[in-house]
Amino acid sequence: MSSLLGPVKFADAAASKQLEELALHPYDLTAEGALDAQRMNSFVASGCGYKLLYGTQRVDNATMEALFALAKEREALKKMEQMQAGEIVNCIEGFLSEDRPALHTAMRDFFDAPNKGKEAQKATAQARVEVEKLRLFMERLDFEDCFTTLVVIGIGGSELGPKAHYEALLPLLKEGRKVLFLGNVDPDAAESILKEIDLKTTLVLTISKTGTTLETVTNEEVMWQKYVAAGLKPEQYFISISMPGSPLDNSNHYLERFYLWDYIGGRYSTTSMVGGVLLSFAFGFSVYWELLEGANSMDKVARNETFAANLPLLAALLGIWNRTFLHSPVVAIIPYCQALARYPAHLQQLDMESNGKQCDKTGHLVDFATGPIIFGEPGTNAQHSFYQLIHQGTTPFPVEFIGFKHPHHTASDMLLQGTTSQEKLLSNLFAQAIALAKGEKKENPNKNFPGNRPSWILLGDQLTPYSLGALLAFYEHKVAFQGFIWGINSFDQEGVQLGKVVATQVLELFSSARKPAKDRKTSSFALGEFFIKQLDTL
Amino acid sequence: MSSLLGPVKFADAAASKQLEELALHPYDLTAEGALDAQRMNSFVASGCGYKLLYGTQRVDNATMEALFALAKEREALKKMEQMQAGEIVNCIEGFLSEDRPALHTAMRDFFDAPNKGKEAQKATAQARVEVEKLRLFMERLDFEDCFTTLVVIGIGGSELGPKAHYEALLPLLKEGRKVLFLGNVDPDAAESILKEIDLKTTLVLTISKTGTTLETVTNEEVMWQKYVAAGLKPEQYFISISMPGSPLDNSNHYLERFYLWDYIGGRYSTTSMVGGVLLSFAFGFSVYWELLEGANSMDKVARNETFAANLPLLAALLGIWNRTFLHSPVVAIIPYCQALARYPAHLQQLDMESNGKQCDKTGHLVDFATGPIIFGEPGTNAQHSFYQLIHQGTTPFPVEFIGFKHPHHTASDMLLQGTTSQEKLLSNLFAQAIALAKGEKKENPNKNFPGNRPSWILLGDQLTPYSLGALLAFYEHKVAFQGFIWGINSFDQEGVQLGKVVATQVLELFSSARKPAKDRKTSSFALGEFFIKQLDTL
Repeated sequence: MSSLLGPVKFADAAASKQLEELALHPYDLTAEGALDAQRMNSFVASGCGYKLLYGTQRVDNATMEALFALAKEREALKKMEQMQAGEIVNCIEGFLSEDRPALHTAMRDFFDAPNKGKEAQKATAQARVEVEKLRLFMERLDFEDCFTTLVVIGIGGSELGPKAHYEALLPLLKEGRKVLFLGNVDPDAAESILKEIDLKTTLVLTISKTGTTLETVTNEEVMWQKYVAAGLKPEQYFISISMPGSPLDNSNHYLERFYLWDYIGGRYSTTSMVGGVLLSFAFGFSVYWELLEGANSMDKVARNETFAANLPLLAALLGIWNRTFLHSPVVAIIPYCQALARYPAHLQQLDMESNGKQCDKTGHLVDFATGPIIFGEPGTNAQHSFYQLIHQGTTPFPVEFIGFKHPHHTASDMLLQGTTSQEKLLSNLFAQAIALAKGEKKENPNKNFPGNRPSWILLGDQLTPYSLGALLAFYEHKVAFQGFIWGINSFDQEGVQLGKVVATQVLELFSSARKPAKDRKTSSFALGEFFIKQLDTL
Repeated sequence: MSSLLGPVKFADAAASKQLEELALHPYDLTAEGALDAQRMNSFVASGCGYKLLYGTQRVDNATMEALFALAKEREALKKMEQMQAGEIVNCIEGFLSEDRPALHTAMRDFFDAPNKGKEAQKATAQARVEVEKLRLFMERLDFEDCFTTLVVIGIGGSELGPKAHYEALLPLLKEGRKVLFLGNVDPDAAESILKEIDLKTTLVLTISKTGTTLETVTNEEVMWQKYVAAGLKPEQYFISISMPGSPLDNSNHYLERFYLWDYIGGRYSTTSMVGGVLLSFAFGFSVYWELLEGANSMDKVARNETFAANLPLLAALLGIWNRTFLHSPVVAIIPYCQALARYPAHLQQLDMESNGKQCDKTGHLVDFATGPIIFGEPGTNAQHSFYQLIHQGTTPFPVEFIGFKHPHHTASDMLLQGTTSQEKLLSNLFAQAIALAKGEKKENPNKNFPGNRPSWILLGDQLTPYSLGALLAFYEHKVAFQGFIWGINSFDQEGVQLGKVVATQVLELFSSARKPAKDRKTSSFALGEFFIKQLDTL
C-alpha cells in the first residue's frame, strides 16, 4: 500500500515477507549438483563490457523473483530515474535535512542520449563549463611545462576516490608527472609529502566543498607557508576546487579555481572536477574523458527496466538479500587486480557513509539491518591474510570479487609451469568462488569447510579508463539502489557531526592551555580534560 | 571442571555463564555521570610506555571481575607461559595437526631475564645466530655500498607485517635506501616494481618458509629472468629467507640465506629475519634491534600476573566481551597516526587468520563467536569515510584507537588558530571516544546519536622502533590470549588449503588449453570450465 510519502515501506513490502520466509531455507550451494551448468549460465548478467556472475550466491529463481518484486514494490527504478533527472532525493520527510538532488550522474552526461530532466541538464551544462575550463588549463600546463608534481590536499571523498582511481590507472601516467595526496592532519603526513617534492615544480590543489574542512585548511596553510618561506609566491602554485563563493573561490589566492556544487556529495565526486583535475594532470584530459564515458554508460545500465540486465540493481538486491535477510554484517570486496589495491577503501567510504544509517526517509528508526561493514584487500594477497576467517570463521559473509581477463601489461606476464601469471591470478579468483560456495566435508573437523559462503564475480576484459568509469558508477548505483530499497537517504552524513563538535571542544582545551593562566576560561569539560591529562603522565 | 585435555571449556566456564547474564544489561555509557573521573581513572592500564584507556568500554567492575575470572578458569596466563617457553601450543588434540610450538617470542628474547624454557632457549640461540649473520651482512652491504634498493618478494605474513613496520618507520630511512614489496602474482604488480628500479643497484629478497609459495616462486622467476636478460648474474643479487633445506636454501642461487623455522607462523614472523633483513637494510641494524627490545618488553608484560596491568590480556578480554557476549561481529582499528596507515592490514591478517576458526583445540565445533572481522584506516581520514556507520549504523561494534603524544617530526607541526596539527589530531581522537560512548539525544531522528559504541585508546608517547615493537607484541599477545581463552588454535591456517587445491585444478584447465588438442586430458571439472569460458565471451 502506497502512502503519501511514497511506496510501501521496506519492512511492510509483501516481497519482504516472502524473502523472510525464503531466508529460512536459503539455496544450499553445497548440495550435490547445486552449481550445475544450467544454473551457472542463467545467473550471468552483462553490461558495459562486464559480466556479473552470481551463480555462487545463495539464491534460486524464487528468491530472484522475490527480490525483483521487492525492487518493484519499492519503486527502485523510478527513484533511480528521479535521482538522475535531478529531483530532490537527499532529504528526510518532515525534518530538517539537506533537501537537494544528488546529481553526480550529471557530471558525465556528455554523451549519447543525455538525460531529459531539467535539473540534470542544468547541472550538466554547468559541469561542461568546468570540463572545458579544465581542458584549457591542461593545455596551458602542457604548453608552459612548469609542473611535474601535483599535491592534492583533501580528505574523505576528496582523497579516497581520487586516489583509488589514480592508482588504478598508474600504468598510463604521463612521462614525468606524478600526484601525491595529503589528507591527514597528522603533521607527519605533510612532512612525508614535503620530503618528496620540489616546490618550484609542484602545483598544489586544495579541495574542499565548503572551503572550511579542518584538516584541509590546516594542511593548505602548512604548504602555503612552505612556499612563502622558500621565497615563492604561493598564489602562482595553488589551484582550488570548491563550491562557488567558498573561501577557496578567491582569484587572488589561486592560479585557477574549479567548481562543484552542493548536489555533489564528496563520496560521489570522483567524476566531477574533484577527480577530473588530478586525473587529467596525471594521465591527460582524454583519459578523464574516457572515464566519464564509462561511468555514463553504466548510468544508463542502471536505468535498464529489465532487472536481470541491470547490473547495479542486481548487485544491490543480492546485497540486501545477504545483509537484511541472511543477516551478514559484512561484505568483503576483493579485486584480483593489484591496480585496484586501494579501490576497497573508496568503496568503504561510498557504501558505509551512504548506507550506514538507522533513520529512514520518513524520519523513523528502521528495525532491520541497513548498510554492511565493507572491507577488502587485493587478491591473491588477501588469500594469505584473512581468507582463513572467510572459509572457516563463525560469521559467514559474502564476497564481491572483481577481475579482468587481461593485465595492463604483458611484459611481466611470463609463462611458467604451463601458465601465465595472469592465468594464475584468475585461477585463484575462480577457485575461491567455487571453494567458498561448495566447501568440503572432512573427517578432521579442523580441515572441514562448511561452504555456503556466497560470492559474485564482476568480470571485465581489462582495466581501462572506460571500464574503471563503469566500475565506479556500478558501485555508486549499487549503493543508491540499496538506499532506495531500504528507504534510507544515501546522500547525507549526519553521523559525522557529533565528533566534529566534540573535537572542537577538546581543541579549545588545548588552545586554552597555551594561554597565560589568567586568560584561561574555566572548563566544565571534565572528560576532555581527563584525556588530555593522560598525555602528561605517559 | 578440568578434563584431561585441560581446563574447563570456554562455553562451560562459570565465568562465561556469569558474563552471559551481565551481557543482558551491559554498562550504559550514555547514562548521566556514566563516564565520571573515578571510573575513567580506574580503567587505565600502563606498560612499556603505553596506556590503555578503556573507560569507554561497556564494562563495570563486576564485568571486569568476571572477565578476569574467565581468564583464570581458562588458564590464560599459564598458556601464555607455555607458549613463550616453547611448549606445543599449535595443535588439535586427537586429530592430525601441525603439532608444534609457536616461538615468535624467542626471536627477540635477547635482553634482560630471558625465558627459562628449554625449547625457547634453543630457538633463541638459533635466532641469535641469524641476527649476528644479519648484522655482519649489513656491515658488508654498507662497506661495499652497491645496493640502494631492496625488492622483497613475499606474500601474506612475508609482506603485510614487514610492509606495515617499514612504513611506520619511514622517517628513519637511511639516506639513499628504499624497499619495495612484490606480493601479488598479478603481472602488473611485478611490472610496476620493475619500472621503479635499476637492476644493477637492486638487491632482491625472496621470502617463503617452504620455498614453494606459488606467487613468490612465480615472481622470483620473473625477476630472475629480468636479471638474466640484462646480462647480470642473478645469484649476485638475490638473497633468501626460508626454512633450512627448502629450495631457497641454495648457496648457488643466493648471495646470502637467512633462516626461520616451522615454529614461526608467517603472521608472527616480523621480528624474525622476515622483518629483520628489510628493516635493517632500510633503517640500519640498530633500529631492528630496538624494535626487538620493545617487542620483548611487551612479551614480559603479557606474563604479568596482575591482570589489570597485563595490557594484551586486558585487550583480549575486552575483545571477547564485545565479540562473544555483546555479539559485535567486527572490530575497527584506527591509528591516529599516518605512519601506521597500513598497520590495520597487518593486524587484519594477524587476528583473522589466527582466530577466524570454528574448530576448538579438542576437535569440536564451537557454538559461540570466535575471531571478529578486523578492518581499519588511519584517523582522522576514516572520520571522513566510514565513521557515519560507526556512529549511526544498525550494527554497533567496538573501535580500537591508537595514538601518540608526539609526531615523528615537528617541522610541519604548525600552530594554526591556537593549536598545532598534532593537537588537532589528538583532539579528534579523544573526541571520537567520547562521542561514540555518550552519543547525543536529538529531536531530529536523523541527527540522533545512540551512543554506547565502545572503544579503547592505546596511547603512547611517540612512534619509535621500541614502541612499534611493543605495539607489535601487544597485538600478537592479544590475539594469542583470545585463542587461549576461546580454546582455539591461533597458530594454524587450515582454512586456506581448499582454495589452493581448487586453484591448482583451474590452473590445469588453463595449462591444458595451451596444449595441442590431442594432448589435452578430458576434464571433469565443469564448474572450472564454466568460469574460464566466461573469459571468451566478454
